[in-house]
Amino acid sequence: MLTGWEDIRTEVLRRISGREWLPGASIPTEEQLAETFGVARATVNRALRELAAEGVLERRRKAGTRVALHPVRKATLDIPVTRLEIEGRGQRYGYRLLLEAEDEPPPAIASRLGLAPGVRLLHLVCLHLADGRPALIEDRWLNPAVLPQKPDFHRQSANEWLLAHVPYTTGDIGFSAANATAEEARLLDVPQGAALFVLDRTTWEGDRPVTCVRLAHAPGYRMQTLI
Amino acid sequence: MLTGWEDIRTEVLRRISGREWLPGASIPTEEQLAETFGVARATVNRALRELAAEGVLERRRKAGTRVALHPVRKATLDIPVTRLEIEGRGQRYGYRLLLEAEDEPPPAIASRLGLAPGVRLLHLVCLHLADGRPALIEDRWLNPAVLPQKPDFHRQSANEWLLAHVPYTTGDIGFSAANATAEEARLLDVPQGAALFVLDRTTWEGDRPVTCVRLAHAPGYRMQTLI
Repeated sequence: MLTGWEDIRTEVLRRISGREWLPGASIPTEEQLAETFGVARATVNRALRELAAEGVLERRRKAGTRVALHPVRKATLDIPVTRLEIEGRGQRYGYRLLLEAEDEPPPAIASRLGLAPGVRLLHLVCLHLADGRPALIEDRWLNPAVLPQKPDFHRQSANEWLLAHVPYTTGDIGFSAANATAEEARLLDVPQGAALFVLDRTTWEGDRPVTCVRLAHAPGYRMQTLI
Repeated sequence: MLTGWEDIRTEVLRRISGREWLPGASIPTEEQLAETFGVARATVNRALRELAAEGVLERRRKAGTRVALHPVRKATLDIPVTRLEIEGRGQRYGYRLLLEAEDEPPPAIASRLGLAPGVRLLHLVCLHLADGRPALIEDRWLNPAVLPQKPDFHRQSANEWLLAHVPYTTGDIGFSAANATAEEARLLDVPQGAALFVLDRTTWEGDRPVTCVRLAHAPGYRMQTLI
């Protein structure tokens, strides 16, 4: 018997993968499916919404629901605080602030934050360690206007401070690979040119730019999720 | 006036970021919030579910809903078919099959797929091109049991064939950085050691292993999403 929305989701996937419902084709209405499966319409609705969020179905007001022609697989990544990510692997966390200075950001960063030339930001560079070994370099430009009182960044990383004090930002995040510069190689204690996994992020709180950060991970790092 | 669930979500976020509701603290019940906001309980429920999915709230049966102590930011990534990703950037797509052979996979891959030693798989290596330039190398091990009839992999990449014929797989996906080997450097026409963004994926259809693939992207690639 199909009872929960998860069962309905599984049955819909079965019909699609069994090519009973073909890519691009319309599927029955929620009312029809509720009757077929003997469940409440809300249960069908929940299952179809999940499948639409996963990219399997396309839902259009009035036009009904279709099987996606080119399903785009979606993967959800957790982006935890660096300290918790390291401790979550069972490693001892360490942290060293390397630079704290007010400065004019490079044009590329000013432009990503939508700042006029000449605006000064707080520039923070720090090293996160796992079991005493360098794990990643955090290079951050921070809008001083978001700091109510100046935190002691020698004690707590901006990464962690921001999540506790300016937690609900919007923005964009990117993942790429880069060869370690001479400076990065020295800080991470790896050969120059080693391939680093880089996460960059620009965030806003409403209309106000908050921060632009680059996290360069030591070789061997792998970001993982289920699909 | 607060009317839709999006308004309720925004108001809940405002109370959390304004520290009216503190990290770790319980928030009022759905009934209480519905009365406060003058909306249906289902509307409050929808907003709280979204915030729980985003990691902002923690919901426990009986214990009620709390503000997360360490909110984990979640980012959703689209993993499209390589051809559509390249065409979506407005570039001309090209494809070259470099190897198609039945072979025993390396132990690491056999183990990821849960295969006994000695089982043979189809090994496919191909190059995807954007505007005639190498964009990424696809190195794939494929379970021949998922192929009803043998596709012509010279005409269509396994990447695309699988999505059309074995679309609803589960599995895991990882992202990392790697220095280009001599062979990868030759195929991508980049210096040996260049930093490549690597996506690896292992998928299953029910209990049956489907494929283990490594996509090594030419330097400059950036995978991006909104948070």
